[in-house]
Order: sequence, then structure tokens, then C-alpha cells
Amino acid sequence: MALIVQKFGGTSVATTDRIKNVAKRVARWKAQGHDIIVVPSAMSGETNRLIGLAREISANPDPRELDVIASTGEQVTIALLAMAMHEEGLQAKSYTGAQVRVLTDSTFTKARILQIDDERIRRDLAEGHVVVVAGFQGADENGNITTLGRGGSDTSAVALAAALKADECQIYTDVDGVYTTDPRVVPEARKLDTITFEEMLEMASLGSKVLQIRSVEFAGKYKVKLRVLSSFEDEGEGTLITVEEDKTMEQPIISGIAFNRDEAKLTILGVPDRPGIAYQILGPIADANIDVDMIIQNVGHDGSTDFSFTVNRADYNRALEVLKETATRMNARGVAGDNKTCKVSAVGVGMRSHPGIASKMFNALGAEGINIQMISTSEIKISVVIEEKYLELAVRVLHKAFGLEKAD
Amino acid sequence: MALIVQKFGGTSVATTDRIKNVAKRVARWKAQGHDIIVVPSAMSGETNRLIGLAREISANPDPRELDVIASTGEQVTIALLAMAMHEEGLQAKSYTGAQVRVLTDSTFTKARILQIDDERIRRDLAEGHVVVVAGFQGADENGNITTLGRGGSDTSAVALAAALKADECQIYTDVDGVYTTDPRVVPEARKLDTITFEEMLEMASLGSKVLQIRSVEFAGKYKVKLRVLSSFEDEGEGTLITVEEDKTMEQPIISGIAFNRDEAKLTILGVPDRPGIAYQILGPIADANIDVDMIIQNVGHDGSTDFSFTVNRADYNRALEVLKETATRMNARGVAGDNKTCKVSAVGVGMRSHPGIASKMFNALGAEGINIQMISTSEIKISVVIEEKYLELAVRVLHKAFGLEKAD
Repeated sequence: MALIVQKFGGTSVATTDRIKNVAKRVARWKAQGHDIIVVPSAMSGETNRLIGLAREISANPDPRELDVIASTGEQVTIALLAMAMHEEGLQAKSYTGAQVRVLTDSTFTKARILQIDDERIRRDLAEGHVVVVAGFQGADENGNITTLGRGGSDTSAVALAAALKADECQIYTDVDGVYTTDPRVVPEARKLDTITFEEMLEMASLGSKVLQIRSVEFAGKYKVKLRVLSSFEDEGEGTLITVEEDKTMEQPIISGIAFNRDEAKLTILGVPDRPGIAYQILGPIADANIDVDMIIQNVGHDGSTDFSFTVNRADYNRALEVLKETATRMNARGVAGDNKTCKVSAVGVGMRSHPGIASKMFNALGAEGINIQMISTSEIKISVVIEEKYLELAVRVLHKAFGLEKAD
Repeated sequence: MALIVQKFGGTSVATTDRIKNVAKRVARWKAQGHDIIVVPSAMSGETNRLIGLAREISANPDPRELDVIASTGEQVTIALLAMAMHEEGLQAKSYTGAQVRVLTDSTFTKARILQIDDERIRRDLAEGHVVVVAGFQGADENGNITTLGRGGSDTSAVALAAALKADECQIYTDVDGVYTTDPRVVPEARKLDTITFEEMLEMASLGSKVLQIRSVEFAGKYKVKLRVLSSFEDEGEGTLITVEEDKTMEQPIISGIAFNRDEAKLTILGVPDRPGIAYQILGPIADANIDVDMIIQNVGHDGSTDFSFTVNRADYNRALEVLKETATRMNARGVAGDNKTCKVSAVGVGMRSHPGIASKMFNALGAEGINIQMISTSEIKISVVIEEKYLELAVRVLHKAFGLEKAD
């Protein structure tokens, strides 16, 4: 008998029929003798509908009030789920974040969980109840309703699993696990049985949007056993996200190929090569509320250097404008940009102990005539920026080069 | 400067545009220096949509969970209203019933308010905020979310006005006040400037559905000054609901003509005239969850009597079946019924001191050839059951007979 937290995303509870299916699934787990805590998201589309109402009232709605309205989405789902469980013959009780209570800071619309009071939940579990807790929400110390931001239900589930020392936190979603890359690009992409937290973080931040990144950090920090599963299939073990040591010795060097289509590249040419220029260039970009992804500065010569970075494609035009002003001010040689680029990354903890991964990657791309425009590396990831038109080709080539289509 | 509670019904907040209008109206009151507490209902249709979702899950949903879902309707409106007030340059803060807190008993779906903690509201008012409190809801002593049942937002508003000793509780609705009768039946119907709580109770229970009856009882008990106003018109004083002593000496004898179309009549004939028969007849009706309205038992002769009562027309067939079984068991002479009847009532505190009202009423009806099937009277009301086809005629005739079309 185990204590399991099960999180169901918006598509898994999108209709009352799907909610009934979730209840049936929970009933099967319960019948095996497990204690179950269920954390649902809002029915898909509901959060957008609610925020749409707010935007009809105000272009810039008050964050405190936005949380009051947004939190109702999950509140509806918890009650419907509890009712559906009653129909399955289960005892079940629902709680909002404020009721449990999930104590957060007061950063409305993107609050952080500080503490979870497990007393009420433990009492209900002991009495045989399935406990249904609204994801995405909590309350601050003054009782104000808060939300955790988009994808926050994953974080709620992991935080509950950590607070209650659950044996496993299962994230049910519309895919059946984490893949070596997007199967729509590479049909041979293979579901991974395990992936480490660090790899998952790199995969998620690079565009494999299976799990909310904060929840993965949280799970890693509190050593919560996290599993991604499909809510539409009854079979399958999904993908288990583990701490590195849990992986077998025979781990693959590369776990997956991630990519991001929305990357735009900007370069400021011939700026003086002296301390402080990175801040002079990126300060105005940050002031314009533009997030920067990759940053590259190469060795200078003749006292000047070129400085490049990438931004989300939607921010490209604004970023270019800001950069032109900076170039004038810094007396730079000029500015260049390209919004027809993309980023492809190889991710794997194995590369720490296996040199030569980078050259294997560059060689594979070069053999197909794909020019590499920028390179950035971390401990467990190598990213390249290339022309957008080569994206699918590059992902397929790298997937094959690292043998990812083969079973472990 | 006064403290005013303003309640806005579902049609008044049915769209974001109407919510903006409510905010503008509140801003005008605030500009006059008043302290304002606003109590909105859910956007019209929303509560039905939510309960519809619950019914898709379960034919008989758990009341505790039903309240969790139903309470979200008002939670959405309070946040939207607060945002709309911010757009008008007001300070405003929203609270759910549980946050304020509105303490209720644990009778889910029809809880009763026990106490309201006014500390948070008073602090916000002192700081210049408009305080927006969700109607229809509260929380029990264990923090479970409760709702007060249909029309409960009126009760929330009155209870807040009582707890905070407000100068006035204004109920904004889609009519501009209480009328002498339904203007759709009698075009000459006149808006009343004042009506007493007792008259209002009789009018409301008889089918003039302007105010929820429990809120009127509550207002009467706690001497809350209650006013019904239109939320779609900027002019007008509405109708003030007063304790009797406030009315001028020149009060009209009859304040209004109420009617109820959904009345069905049943009679059990020739039952033994002995103690306990009322219970023997009505016990099984109550057990079948059928509400009884009028009850008439006339003097018996030859040791037997006839016993009549009315029920809502929707319950007629079931009630008739139950009554037939009772008749067999009691060895009664038979059973009769008619579901083509209606009830018309004259209401007015003045009739206490003016004898002859009943005969004037019967005379007016008789002159039009309208046969009276049943009569029931209270201190301030006379009701008759007549054939349904005469309803409009009877209402017009009585409205004219008591001179209601004339201004006070």
C-alpha cells in the first residue's frame, strides 16, 4: 500500500465524461489498497475564458482580483471529480487551496508555495477518503487567494507529494511519457522509461512542454518520485523522472533531442571589448521586458568584439529597435539580426563522462550541409542555432546519430 | 455620509458591460461620500450552468460538493466587479463568503447565516475601499463552503447590513420597485413608494418574486431599512420596505393584489369528522415531499366532513394518487381535484382596522360572475381560489375595486 498523488491536466478533465473516466481510474488504484490524493487542473479552456472576462473589464486587471477569478476554474473541477468518485462508490472530499491550506507568498498570479498543512488531508485519508485538492492555487497568510501561474497544478501536486512524503507523484497528461524527441518530427522517436531531473529540466526549457519546469525543480529538490503518464491509455508505465544515481549503469549518453522553433538571433557588431559591455547591451533589453535565451560573446581582436543573443521570435522587432539605439550610443559598427532561426539541442547526463559528443553532433550536422550559427553548451546539453528551414532535418539526423531510436 | 449595502442580482451583472455599469453607479454613490458594501449574485445563467455540470456527473450530487461548485459563480462576479471599480478610479477589494467570514450552519445548499465577522470589512471601509462580498455563500465552523439556496444573495446583503448596522440595504433588480400588482396583467398598476415587511412577505409568498422571502423576514427581524430599486434606471427612489409604524397615517387599506397561477386544488370527501384527521390526510402528502399551500376544513355534519387543500400544479398528479390511497384507507366517500385553478389575494395592513374588506372583495368578484371555490384569510390578506381562466379579470377587477391605480 502506497500513498500516491495523481495530477490530471486540463485535457484530462475537459468534459464531464472525461472526469468520469478519471474517477474510474482513481477507483482502480484505490481498489489496490493505495491512499490517493488527486490534484486536477481547470477544465481545458476554462482558465482562458475566465481571464478573457477579466480582460473585457480591464486591460490591466488587478492581480489580486485576477487570482480570485482564475482560482474558480479548479474549484469547479474538484467538486465535479469528488461527485464522480462518489458515483464510483468511493468516499471523496474536495478542498480548495485555501482550505487545505496551501500557504503561499503574496505574489499574486505567480505565488510560491511556502508550506502545506497536511493535518486535514491525513485525517481524511485515514478515514478512507480520496482527497481532491485544487491545483494551481493557495492562500497567503492573510487569507487572500493566490495562484501559482500557468502550469501551477504540476507544482501543487509535487508540493503535496513532498509535504505528505508520498511514494510517487503521477502526472497524467495527454502524452504517455517523455520522448527522445517530438514524434511528429521523428516518427522513430522512442518513449523513455526514465529520465533524470536535470535532463528533464533541459528538455522542458527547450520546448518539450510535458511538465511545468518549476515542478521538476521542486521534485528534484525534495526527491519526489515523479512519473509522467497518459490519462487516455490504461496501459503503460509512462516515464519515471529520477535522481541521477537511480539510473542504471547502462544509461544512454544522450537522452533526447530538444528543439525550439521560436528563436530569433541578434548581433551587435564591433563593440569595444571592455568590462561591462554585456550589461550595457542587455540592460536595455531587460528594461523592455524581453527575455534573453542564449548569449554568446567571442574573443575580441583589435580591441573590439561581436556580441550575439537570442530572444523569442515575438520579441524580435522590439529587441532589434532597442539594440539599434544601444549601437548608436556605444558607437558600435552595426547591428545584425535574423528571425528565421531555430535552436536544436542534444541533452543527456551521460555526456559528462563521454567526451566527443559535441564533435559528433557538429559532424552529423555538417555532413548534411547544415551551417551552425551559434553554439552554447552546459554540463548536460549542447545547443546550436541554425537556419529554421533545417530544423526537422537536423532533429532527425541527430536522433539517428545518437542511436535514440533503439531500445535501451 | 451613510453606510449602504447594495445588492445586484444576476441580470444586473449578466455581462461585463453591465458589470461596468454597476461600477459606475457605485462610483456615483461613493462620490457622495458614502461607505459602500456591494453584494453581487452570479452572472445570470451561471449558477444553472454549474449545477448542470454537476447533474451530468450525478443525478443526486453530494450537497457539500454542490456548494463548492455553485459558490464559484459569485466568486467570479466579485472579482470582475472589483476590477471594474478600479477602472472607475475606486479602491475596491473582493471577498468570498468564507474569507469575510460569513459563518453559517452546515446545511449544505440551504445554509443559514449564524454570524458575520465585520472586522475586515470595517478596516477596508475605513481605508476608503468599496468592499465587494460574494452573495449566496458562507462557510461553516470547519471551513466547508456553504450556500444559502436560491435567492440567497438577498439574504447575504441583509445579513451584512444587519451585522454592520448599515443605514440602508438597497436591492437592485430588473424592476424599479414593488407594484400594486403585475403591470403585465393590469397596465394601471402603480409602483408603491413604501410597503411594510408583513405586506411584502405576503406579496412575495404569493408570487410577486421581487425579493427572496427569507431576506425580508431577516430585514424585518433586524430592522434593516430595505429598498428595492432598478439597476437599469438612474432615476427613481424604488420602493422602501418599512416597519409598519413608519407608514403615514393615510396608508391605503389594501397595498396590492397578488396572484399565483400554479395552484391546484384537491378535496377528500366525506371523511369522519374526528380529531387527528388533518394529520392522517396531510401526513402522507408531506412524506411525498409535496408542499401544501392553503388548507380548508369546513364544519362537518352527520359525523363527516370535506377537507380541501392546494398544492403546486406540478405536484398535482402525485398528490392526487397519494390522496386516493388515503381515501381508501380512511373509508372516505371519494376524492375530487382540479388543476385549472388559481389564487388571487388582496394584501394590506390596513385591513386590520377596516372591516368589510372581505365582503367588498367577494362582491366585486361576484358582480363579474366569478365563482369563489375556496377562501383563506390572515391578519393582512384575503385569498380566494377561482377558475384559472378568470385570473386576469379578477386581478383587474380587484385592483380597480380597491382604487389601487390612484396615487397615495
